[in-house]
Amino acid sequence: MINVGIVGGTGYTGVELLRLLAQHPQVSVKAITSRSEAGVKVCDMYPNLRGHYDTLAFSEPDAKALGAMDAVFFATPHGVAHALAGELLANGTRVIDLSADFRLRDADEWSRWYDQPHGAPELLEEAVYGLPEMHREKIKTARLIAVPGCYPTAVQLGYLPLLEAGLVDPSQLIADCKSGVTGAGRGAKVASLLAEASESMKAYGAGGHRHLPEIRQGLGDMQPNPVGLTFVPHLTPMIRGIHATLYSTLTAEPGDLQALFEQRYANEPFVDVMPAGSHPETRSVKGNNTCRIAVHRPSNGNTVVVLSVIDNLVKGASGQAIQNLNLMFGFDEHMGLNAPALMP
Amino acid sequence: MINVGIVGGTGYTGVELLRLLAQHPQVSVKAITSRSEAGVKVCDMYPNLRGHYDTLAFSEPDAKALGAMDAVFFATPHGVAHALAGELLANGTRVIDLSADFRLRDADEWSRWYDQPHGAPELLEEAVYGLPEMHREKIKTARLIAVPGCYPTAVQLGYLPLLEAGLVDPSQLIADCKSGVTGAGRGAKVASLLAEASESMKAYGAGGHRHLPEIRQGLGDMQPNPVGLTFVPHLTPMIRGIHATLYSTLTAEPGDLQALFEQRYANEPFVDVMPAGSHPETRSVKGNNTCRIAVHRPSNGNTVVVLSVIDNLVKGASGQAIQNLNLMFGFDEHMGLNAPALMP
Amino acid sequence: MINVGIVGGTGYTGVELLRLLAQHPQVSVKAITSRSEAGVKVCDMYPNLRGHYDTLAFSEPDAKALGAMDAVFFATPHGVAHALAGELLANGTRVIDLSADFRLRDADEWSRWYDQPHGAPELLEEAVYGLPEMHREKIKTARLIAVPGCYPTAVQLGYLPLLEAGLVDPSQLIADCKSGVTGAGRGAKVASLLAEASESMKAYGAGGHRHLPEIRQGLGDMQPNPVGLTFVPHLTPMIRGIHATLYSTLTAEPGDLQALFEQRYANEPFVDVMPAGSHPETRSVKGNNTCRIAVHRPSNGNTVVVLSVIDNLVKGASGQAIQNLNLMFGFDEHMGLNAPALMP
Amino acid sequence: MINVGIVGGTGYTGVELLRLLAQHPQVSVKAITSRSEAGVKVCDMYPNLRGHYDTLAFSEPDAKALGAMDAVFFATPHGVAHALAGELLANGTRVIDLSADFRLRDADEWSRWYDQPHGAPELLEEAVYGLPEMHREKIKTARLIAVPGCYPTAVQLGYLPLLEAGLVDPSQLIADCKSGVTGAGRGAKVASLLAEASESMKAYGAGGHRHLPEIRQGLGDMQPNPVGLTFVPHLTPMIRGIHATLYSTLTAEPGDLQALFEQRYANEPFVDVMPAGSHPETRSVKGNNTCRIAVHRPSNGNTVVVLSVIDNLVKGASGQAIQNLNLMFGFDEHMGLNAPALMP
Repeated sequence: MINVGIVGGTGYTGVELLRLLAQHPQVSVKAITSRSEAGVKVCDMYPNLRGHYDTLAFSEPDAKALGAMDAVFFATPHGVAHALAGELLANGTRVIDLSADFRLRDADEWSRWYDQPHGAPELLEEAVYGLPEMHREKIKTARLIAVPGCYPTAVQLGYLPLLEAGLVDPSQLIADCKSGVTGAGRGAKVASLLAEASESMKAYGAGGHRHLPEIRQGLGDMQPNPVGLTFVPHLTPMIRGIHATLYSTLTAEPGDLQALFEQRYANEPFVDVMPAGSHPETRSVKGNNTCRIAVHRPSNGNTVVVLSVIDNLVKGASGQAIQNLNLMFGFDEHMGLNAPALMP
Repeated sequence: MINVGIVGGTGYTGVELLRLLAQHPQVSVKAITSRSEAGVKVCDMYPNLRGHYDTLAFSEPDAKALGAMDAVFFATPHGVAHALAGELLANGTRVIDLSADFRLRDADEWSRWYDQPHGAPELLEEAVYGLPEMHREKIKTARLIAVPGCYPTAVQLGYLPLLEAGLVDPSQLIADCKSGVTGAGRGAKVASLLAEASESMKAYGAGGHRHLPEIRQGLGDMQPNPVGLTFVPHLTPMIRGIHATLYSTLTAEPGDLQALFEQRYANEPFVDVMPAGSHPETRSVKGNNTCRIAVHRPSNGNTVVVLSVIDNLVKGASGQAIQNLNLMFGFDEHMGLNAPALMP
Repeated sequence: MINVGIVGGTGYTGVELLRLLAQHPQVSVKAITSRSEAGVKVCDMYPNLRGHYDTLAFSEPDAKALGAMDAVFFATPHGVAHALAGELLANGTRVIDLSADFRLRDADEWSRWYDQPHGAPELLEEAVYGLPEMHREKIKTARLIAVPGCYPTAVQLGYLPLLEAGLVDPSQLIADCKSGVTGAGRGAKVASLLAEASESMKAYGAGGHRHLPEIRQGLGDMQPNPVGLTFVPHLTPMIRGIHATLYSTLTAEPGDLQALFEQRYANEPFVDVMPAGSHPETRSVKGNNTCRIAVHRPSNGNTVVVLSVIDNLVKGASGQAIQNLNLMFGFDEHMGLNAPALMP
Repeated sequence: MINVGIVGGTGYTGVELLRLLAQHPQVSVKAITSRSEAGVKVCDMYPNLRGHYDTLAFSEPDAKALGAMDAVFFATPHGVAHALAGELLANGTRVIDLSADFRLRDADEWSRWYDQPHGAPELLEEAVYGLPEMHREKIKTARLIAVPGCYPTAVQLGYLPLLEAGLVDPSQLIADCKSGVTGAGRGAKVASLLAEASESMKAYGAGGHRHLPEIRQGLGDMQPNPVGLTFVPHLTPMIRGIHATLYSTLTAEPGDLQALFEQRYANEPFVDVMPAGSHPETRSVKGNNTCRIAVHRPSNGNTVVVLSVIDNLVKGASGQAIQNLNLMFGFDEHMGLNAPALMP
């Protein structure tokens, strides 16, 4: 049994950590911080947690208290983990950061996309990008994990077999992605109101989105050539879910694409390659840590279409964070992540 | 470990049984029947079950195979359990019927509401109405359980403390109920299409609904006087959830209503009385077996308003069925029903 | 052709006035005010208005400019019309107030519910409550109209035939109402986010809601006895629409209720009594000024159930405001309000 | 004033014709046919039409009665217009076919995609493809119009300026399209239930969709080279709306793309080029005949991204059909199509 803390627990990734960890037999949540809600019990804010966390209350962030934990999750806006991670690591506490703070290896690029200096460049070398399907061995011994973003998870897992096999042109990739509204967080914004966002579909960030450099870096790690990626995210009228539709151009006769995907992911506990011809639905992973993938080659032509779905709050955030924790502490990789998706 | 079968597994209560039982450490689903889908693997129909039931397939109903089970759930239209329950019971198999077949103690009344003769009146005396908050001790030794309907569960749990205490007039009850569309089942009906049922609200069955006699019978069991109930169900544009808004007229000075409810349900694992002044949301029980209740007395007047929410597929069907099974087989009442609701 | 202004045009009732008035052949919108958005073109904020109002921009409120209009609509929070209406009326400009400022005839009661002194009690005597089905003749000559609230419109139109005919007990009324989320306005509140409000149902204000005294006053005007009303509003996961389910107790043998309703509303252009046995859907009035009503008497008992649906932004606000304007200026009552509801 | 008939009026495009034509001052709907609903009044099936079509009832299809009309709309499954169009044309009745029957110029290709022989190849030469932005002059004198499909309309209008100007490679086009569920029609299919299709996103037809050859033909008409198009449609949890996200590769320095689009559509009444940097929302055209378009060139690279939104039932079907009728009969092109979109 280990003790963990959560920094910034009032957002959707924070409450999702609590929901999932309530089912984890080896983890006890001992602290959860929020400046704005200090003193409030988590079950008063999230009634679904009544009966599961009847005494846990939000507290002011306190590095000493957090430093007594075995691990601390950051479910915070960018910049917060920069400020605290170093001290926690020095105390021997492992850090699992769900924010963007340690995802980009290049501090300058981070600064350009986030419009502020990088707050902890000295930790970048040790940070491990927490995509188990790419970096499982490093994760096992890591002290500091950068949990991948939601879009980057769906996109990277979809392209991985094709790029590793060198079958498609990495300079001509198009990722058309659709996300539920929890991807925009729990902030009170007019554009996220039900009255504004339901019964409608729109793209956003077509000119450039902060997940673009992260995805580019990840795809670059899969093969040696420069990556050219067009990434257009869309806001979809649903609570959870990401659907990535991934286009790429074949550079060689690919053989059996279905077999390629099945073999690549044969031993991956949380990637499910659907039968040939499938169209995965986001609801098939609602509340669940699986990424379901299907691969198509329309009209046997030069374009490969990969369909990749995840729950943005689970495999795209809190579930993947727990998968990382399981690897770091030697637990079964499935622990706390067993429940089937809620469908219907 | 016990072996169970499910008759009629293609509907929403069937797949919900599979979803929940996937997490039950003492139950193994050995058979699931469907005439129309015989031979199809359940995970091909419900991709959320991939990785949980990779070999289980629908089979033709077969009384002999089912009779080898410790328990059989009926997730069928009315009439089916009438035909099969007797033979199963004779084989020593316990029967948990999610349909309406054994809910009404009066076979004639059943016939009037369901427009057909009752198929197994000889079993009515032994059937136990599976509302643990009313009949826990009988359930423990029952062989045949009639799982309450979804509306009846929400309505009865909301009125129970008031009627048992004799505080309200049982002849003037009004239950205004709102249900998500899974309450209408998985049948392909135009009125249940997203294009028809979303962005809209409507009542139905204002002139009389099949759940009315069941509710009336249950409320009658709580106190000695005749029950007069107006019950109006409404179709709500959401997948899951029932919200019952229950009106009653005080016949005496009630004292502390909040305390009354809290005390009545103090030891109930799946009824949560919310703090005074609360308005429970259906999403706080999405995927979960809890009934959350709040009690209000507007302007300190003579009308009491009880707000009672459940997930129609869980506490209103499959979850309650498993709660009954746990009681019947001596398992912890929570077993397989531990996960917090999915929120957001 | 008359010229009108709109004060406070950034909210949902403001944009709905613009949408409807774009089709009105006798009205030209010459000014629309908003402190926060002054200088912004309305079609930049509301792209559905592109091509309809290509030059109209929000301006600072200016009593002189507004005083040059034939009529001014207030689509503002409470208190604003108090401050400006008197000056406009003195200039000969007619005022149609969509806020609550002039709905209650009793200034003290207004102060209690809105927690501030009434800002224009001297205008109360002249203000006309703009429910045409009750006050058509007075509206025609009014200078100051208090447009009814959304819930009050649905509830009053539903009870009107019963109370006028003296058939039900006015001291035992129960109005269970369900509203889409635009009823909560365009403010950026967490509870109104799609991620919070969709896939869920909840009551609110069960202990007392500001529309209660307005409804009570209106029902009191229909018959001579004291009104006892329990009013419970619910938030429903849809954009527009109110469904009022209205319960009352018969005090006499009612005769033909269907005929009673049909006769009372035979000449009302915007009240549609549905055929006996109907259950009106809110979507049948989406974007439209009609109130559709059905009346039921379950099991031929003592309880009458009236189902009354409106679009909260149209008959519940901006459409009814235009209906009032049509009456005040001698236009055809339908003018600008002809389009059928958007369905599906 | 002209008289029109509608063949197959029970589906969504049929009722949408009725909704829009209720506002058309020069059109009277004299007949609407449906075998399954013959005798039923349209306002009994679609209560939003109460007060607009109080006597019109569905009738059995009757070529003689239809032949007395000035124009007949076909809102039917494919194959029906093949059988009837010839006879109507011979009677001097103009035919506006919303189905796919006359969209493809090549009867053999039609047969391949629709798995049946083409029923009226002799009419293909005279049929005019009813996309006014491409074929306005031909439409004005046409007797037989093939109204474009919903996806084809959104995709063609988005690519048109780029292809006409020869700026992009027509052999490498990718159209990622998202549609509301009315695109699947009013048939009672399990996959279209609210309980199945809401809170989820999925692609379909990734291997080939019937709109593909129609789009290919249209794009081919815009420029001289062979078209290579990958088209992936997605089902989106909303009632109405298509969002097409269109990718293409520049073959030359394009100059000012924004100006190119604005100039191409400067005189088009139903194409709205949004300001540079915009992301059009489908709700901005809900119920409205406009196509709103934005053009992006991410990072000033070689990929152009066009965002194109329509209401699938209006510009994607019934509204465009009426736009064609207006052109054919010399009415103002806007007639009956003036109302702003319903937003929120």
